[in-house]
Amino acid sequence: MSIITLTTDLGLKDFTLSAIKGSIYSLYKEATIVDVSHLVPKFNIIQAGFILKNAYKHFPKKSIHIIGVLPYETAQNRHVVIQYDDHYFIGNDNGVFSIIFDDKPTQIIELDLKNITSNNAFLKPTKDIFVHAACHIAKGGTIEMLGRKKADYNQRTTFKAQTSEYNIRGSIIYIDNFGNAITNIPELLFKEVARGRDFTISFRVPGYDIKTIRKSYSEVAPAERLAIFGPTGFLEIAINLGNASQLLGLSENDIVNISFS
Amino acid sequence: MSIITLTTDLGLKDFTLSAIKGSIYSLYKEATIVDVSHLVPKFNIIQAGFILKNAYKHFPKKSIHIIGVLPYETAQNRHVVIQYDDHYFIGNDNGVFSIIFDDKPTQIIELDLKNITSNNAFLKPTKDIFVHAACHIAKGGTIEMLGRKKADYNQRTTFKAQTSEYNIRGSIIYIDNFGNAITNIPELLFKEVARGRDFTISFRVPGYDIKTIRKSYSEVAPAERLAIFGPTGFLEIAINLGNASQLLGLSENDIVNISFS
Amino acid sequence: MSIITLTTDLGLKDFTLSAIKGSIYSLYKEATIVDVSHLVPKFNIIQAGFILKNAYKHFPKKSIHIIGVLPYETAQNRHVVIQYDDHYFIGNDNGVFSIIFDDKPTQIIELDLKNITSNNAFLKPTKDIFVHAACHIAKGGTIEMLGRKKADYNQRTTFKAQTSEYNIRGSIIYIDNFGNAITNIPELLFKEVARGRDFTISFRVPGYDIKTIRKSYSEVAPAERLAIFGPTGFLEIAINLGNASQLLGLSENDIVNISFS
Repeated sequence: MSIITLTTDLGLKDFTLSAIKGSIYSLYKEATIVDVSHLVPKFNIIQAGFILKNAYKHFPKKSIHIIGVLPYETAQNRHVVIQYDDHYFIGNDNGVFSIIFDDKPTQIIELDLKNITSNNAFLKPTKDIFVHAACHIAKGGTIEMLGRKKADYNQRTTFKAQTSEYNIRGSIIYIDNFGNAITNIPELLFKEVARGRDFTISFRVPGYDIKTIRKSYSEVAPAERLAIFGPTGFLEIAINLGNASQLLGLSENDIVNISFS
Repeated sequence: MSIITLTTDLGLKDFTLSAIKGSIYSLYKEATIVDVSHLVPKFNIIQAGFILKNAYKHFPKKSIHIIGVLPYETAQNRHVVIQYDDHYFIGNDNGVFSIIFDDKPTQIIELDLKNITSNNAFLKPTKDIFVHAACHIAKGGTIEMLGRKKADYNQRTTFKAQTSEYNIRGSIIYIDNFGNAITNIPELLFKEVARGRDFTISFRVPGYDIKTIRKSYSEVAPAERLAIFGPTGFLEIAINLGNASQLLGLSENDIVNISFS
Repeated sequence: MSIITLTTDLGLKDFTLSAIKGSIYSLYKEATIVDVSHLVPKFNIIQAGFILKNAYKHFPKKSIHIIGVLPYETAQNRHVVIQYDDHYFIGNDNGVFSIIFDDKPTQIIELDLKNITSNNAFLKPTKDIFVHAACHIAKGGTIEMLGRKKADYNQRTTFKAQTSEYNIRGSIIYIDNFGNAITNIPELLFKEVARGRDFTISFRVPGYDIKTIRKSYSEVAPAERLAIFGPTGFLEIAINLGNASQLLGLSENDIVNISFS
């Protein structure tokens, strides 16, 4: 019995999210549905990808992850199911997958489900196409039956931090529930560029540079700022038992710079 | 195994929602519970009805829908279970059902469950009475066993748009997660009155009249306003990839007028 | 099949909550997971305890309740599983249990799960330690196998209302979804001190004293203030069909005083 997860920007008030769940149960009544997040900012594929990238690996292998953010196909962006790390990801190939994956996927199938009818044209991509594909897999069907193989998915390199000999220039991509400001600078990239040199992390607010990276929030006193490779593996600016975003005035898209001596 | 859905104004923070779910599992541990919405504005039966009207039809037949908004009985408003479109609706007959149903229900039963005890008088209607009825049905019991037949439910005609030869006068009943402003003007009513004539849709903000109805949001450029019979089948004022409510200053209860030449 | 409930301050947007659910399904795929609340204010063990205290008793006996608020162990605060009222509570012994329990628990086990590995150090307490313990119990394991017995949990007497011959001095510990301001004054304590005497309930806003306790919100006219021992068994200041917190300017931590003649 496979798990089907949902990551959308639909919010929690409207009828749309439960319509999707109702459609899943209509096709596959034994489904186990798990909400990853429905509070993705509207149309924000970076955050949708970031949330699911961090969430999916805690689920059992063979779990099926539906991404319902900007789900409408264009000539360039096609509906796909991607097998990666022994999980299945179903969504619109609008760039979101270049956030989720670090390595090459096992297989990419462009969905060919023209026969799927819908009682709701607006919700059709997520509620009918993606749900049909998910329930097909959950019931034991192969992904090859859902369409034709595709060599690659759409890459979006602009989401990545930029590096030079003396510098890493990234940005804040996510403010979490505790106000931690999470950047797009992964620990591995930092280590590669740093090579043990001293460094200065600077951001929007002058005078608050940070020169140490901590292993846990409690290494500094309550209300003190710190930098840490947090639960996501990305560098974050945090305040021990406090809200870094509010207290330091940090927002998504703010530049975070690390300079090396 | 029937699905039990929940539509309430209880919010997501308090203990009350999980108390209801705990009560369901206490009576029927195999239950599949689905949240429709708990962010219904407090006491707002129009929005509760609107959300459930649009959600329920995506669920499997025989699903059971509990409505926990203004659940306290009065002499006029009685607890009922209503069979409609091969689904079951359980709630207080406070007017909410005249939003949900377009046609005559198959059957209406006024609940007679005086023997139900409760460990919480305040939550008793939803947590004990409605949950008892829902679990009874989910376990295969007939609705006739829950009370006595009733000829009709309470109608509320004031919720409907008004029409004349040259005019439809409706109002915005719902702002969705994307800021789309949804009116109480259904497509069928529009077609009946319009009979192919030209029209002008006007609303609170002068100078932003709309004279065309679109088939999809992307028919207009990003950030352009449009009118559309959206996912709900009701006329909505939207902005392609933007927030119509914020950008046009539209709120629930605002008048939307369509005049015909 | 036991139910596992979750009470956290993780919010509903981040990846962390679904990571915990994924971990539960990875260990025990038949789990029934119920969200109690994830909107507990950050680090607020009083509110976490208050919500779960009121929620748990509506669940079937043998349910397992994970509390993921301030979950990091210290020398004084240890990870425990506590059997109480034929339910299981798993969390960090940071004081939260003195809110939840009125009587002595059946058994307290300090968790000794040093062999548990984690793919995420930050989430380890809730996602790995507590989840491991919960799934162990859900699968029928004894709690004695999870660690060693402990005589007591950490008490926090400062959370309780103070009394004298002529006075009860409490505070508002929770504002619910309807704006009701709930105090830490339980009905039993009130009756013990009152012994039938007249009383005056006063709070932050002068001129709004209350001298009667109601049995239901509707005993007063709509928009009228009242005091009531509400669904939680604690005294609350409410407004019938209105928002007492907003209209009377009441906030968490405000003092509520009852003086007896």
